[in-house]
Formats: sequence, C-alpha cells, structure tokens
Amino acid sequence: MLKLHGFSASNYVNMVKFALLEKGMAFEQVNDYPSQEASFLDISPMGKVPVLETGQGFLAETNVILEYIDETGEGPALYPANPFQRAQVKELAKLIELYIELPARRCYPEVFFGGKVSDETKQQTRDALIKGAAALKRVAKFDPFVAGAQLTAADAVLLYSLDLAAGIAGKLFDLDLLTEIPGSKALLDQLNQRDSARQVDEERKAGMAEFMAHVRGGK
Amino acid sequence: MLKLHGFSASNYVNMVKFALLEKGMAFEQVNDYPSQEASFLDISPMGKVPVLETGQGFLAETNVILEYIDETGEGPALYPANPFQRAQVKELAKLIELYIELPARRCYPEVFFGGKVSDETKQQTRDALIKGAAALKRVAKFDPFVAGAQLTAADAVLLYSLDLAAGIAGKLFDLDLLTEIPGSKALLDQLNQRDSARQVDEERKAGMAEFMAHVRGGK
Repeated sequence: MLKLHGFSASNYVNMVKFALLEKGMAFEQVNDYPSQEASFLDISPMGKVPVLETGQGFLAETNVILEYIDETGEGPALYPANPFQRAQVKELAKLIELYIELPARRCYPEVFFGGKVSDETKQQTRDALIKGAAALKRVAKFDPFVAGAQLTAADAVLLYSLDLAAGIAGKLFDLDLLTEIPGSKALLDQLNQRDSARQVDEERKAGMAEFMAHVRGGK
Repeated sequence: MLKLHGFSASNYVNMVKFALLEKGMAFEQVNDYPSQEASFLDISPMGKVPVLETGQGFLAETNVILEYIDETGEGPALYPANPFQRAQVKELAKLIELYIELPARRCYPEVFFGGKVSDETKQQTRDALIKGAAALKRVAKFDPFVAGAQLTAADAVLLYSLDLAAGIAGKLFDLDLLTEIPGSKALLDQLNQRDSARQVDEERKAGMAEFMAHVRGGK
C-alpha cells in the first residue's frame, strides 16, 4: 500500500492527502517531520514532507506526487486527459505554489511560530503576494473550480495555500487577498465542505498539538 | 508551428530551446522580454518568459512546457515512459529549479547587472545553495546524465542552472559548487558539446548585447 510520510499539520502533506481521499486510493500515513537526519534525507533529498513511499521507491515534491498518483491510481482524474488542458492545470498549481504559497511561507515564522522575520523579507513577501494574487486572478476560472468545471489537483494546492497566504497578508500587510481574487473565497468554502477536506481538517486539528510541541522542541 | 516567446539570453528560455532542438521539433522564436504590460500578462500571467504558443493557446512555466512538448511532440523522449521513473525526473528537475537556480537568481542583480543585494539575501542564498547542492549530490546519477543513462529534461534544467549558480557561489561565497557535486562538471562539459547546446549558446551570445541594452533601458 502507498505510504504518505508527513505530519497532519503540514499544508503540503494535506494537498496529497486530500487528493488521495478524493480519488479513493488506499494509503497509510507515516508520521514524519521534516528532518536533516541522513536516514530521512535518504528518502527526501531536501528533508521535506510529504514523501510518498511506493513499491518502486520514494518520491518527494507535492506536485510530482500529485501527478504520480493521478497517473497510476484509481478514482476520478485530477488532471485532464487533454495534454494542453493538463499543462494548464500544472501551470495553475505551480503559480499558486511558487508565487503565493512560497512567498507567504517566508513569513510563517513570525505569524505562526512566535519568531521574527526582517522588514526586507516582509516587503518582498508583500510585493510577491500582490503580484501572485493578480496572476491567479487573471488565470483562475472559479467556475466553480479553479481550473473550470472539474475538480483538479490545482484545487488541492489552492485549498491548502490560499487561506494561509491570506492569513499572512491580512496580519502583516492589512491586505485582503481573498477579496483581491474574486471567486476564491466561495471556492474555498465549497472545497472545505467536501468529505475529503473535512477528514483532512480533523486530522490537522488532532495533529496540531504534537506539531507545536515538535516545533518548540527545536525540531 | 510552435512559437517560443522569450529572449536568447534567458536561461529558462534556453532550457526549452535545448529540448525542442534535441527532439528535432519545428519552432519559431518570438523575441519577448519579461513584462508587466497587460498585453503580455495575457499570455504569461506572471509576465515571465518562456511562453510557448500552441494551437490551443499559451503555456508558461518551463517545466510545464517541457512536459507538454514531450507529451505532444515527435523526437526522443525527455521523460521516461514508466510513471515512477518519470516522477523521479520531474523531482530532479524541480530540485534543481527550486533549490539551486531560484536561490542563486536572488543574487543575479549584484553579480550580473551591477546592482546590490542585501547581506540577508546573500546569507539566505548561500545557505540555500549549500543545501541544494547536497540534495542534488544525493540524488543525481551522473551516469552519464543527471537521471541515469538517458538524456532527460532534468539535464536541460541542469545545463542552464548549475553553471549560473556556480558562478554566484564562486563570486560571492568562494564556494566551488561543481566540486561539491562530483560528476556535475563532466556532465556540463559533455552537454555543452551537443549540437543543440552549441546552437543555444551561439544564439545566447548573439542576443546578449540586446538583452543588456534592454536591462539598461530599465526594462
């Protein structure tokens, strides 16, 4: 059976978990935190989660895992069969990851973990989020899903990126990211009603205390 | 015919151009620079190059374009047919992009364009490059290609990322990135001998003066 290595408070782990649940694929979660230990780097070269353990070996990087499970697993497709439309979904997922989630992530230490980030980092994050939100607004369909009529992997990336980025933008920059991207809030609300998202969220809440203890323990 | 929008001094444009040449696919280059003009954002939501113009519309993001041309075009495959091996090539290409090229890129303004970046940015770049190089060393095969016996899209990403990152690491941090990743220099040398890479490099040199004039013009 597929094993999903990662912890339930990780938004990237949750993108994969959401996708596995949506597809109805059997999997087992192995509770792993990011680590620079040699034994963990053997399965995840950057020491990150999620990692998918397959019969052939380990895969890291969320979008790579999402595409792999869609190519090999049963259940509804999360990428269109048409190559151009599939490319559009990948482009959308990458836009959300690189230009919204990753810039926002640079400020997570201050907003979520009681640390501090520099004014330079905040300024760069603010500029990046404004640009990323404008790009998403330009290409997202919200009809009702981010890529159009069908649920795709880009919705999984959106669901576990945009609310966090909006939290950062609101707290640090007094910027309402969801209003900047019309249709995004309605889609997040709709996605959060799905059984898959409810299960992910319950497990996230259940895993949060342990994760915070792990963070306080200095990783 | 496919149109590749971008300028010949762009390393990301050159990843795609190298792949198109390796596959022997017909294409026409349209000389475009990154731009935040509304007309350009219509074809590239972040205003970046490369953009691939297809019969069905425009695609941005290099890895998305590389996968699309491999799925739809003729010529030798740049991704393995086996889903797990294909995922490994995608993971390798993403590792090089996210953890080597993108951190190095933050220091391009100082090293290539006579600007300045902050000490904070330099420190973050240095830390990221050391970690990224260690990750690449851990997973790259160099046998002789980065993913093993066959040339793949990960080689295209490597060829137009690692030398630039090594230049940054050498100039700013007195760090020899290619020595840190045994086998990488021999592969770069070998890739640079290919007809495709020679053509890309000639066009890069020919386009450099115009690009620098464009940069001086304030983009």
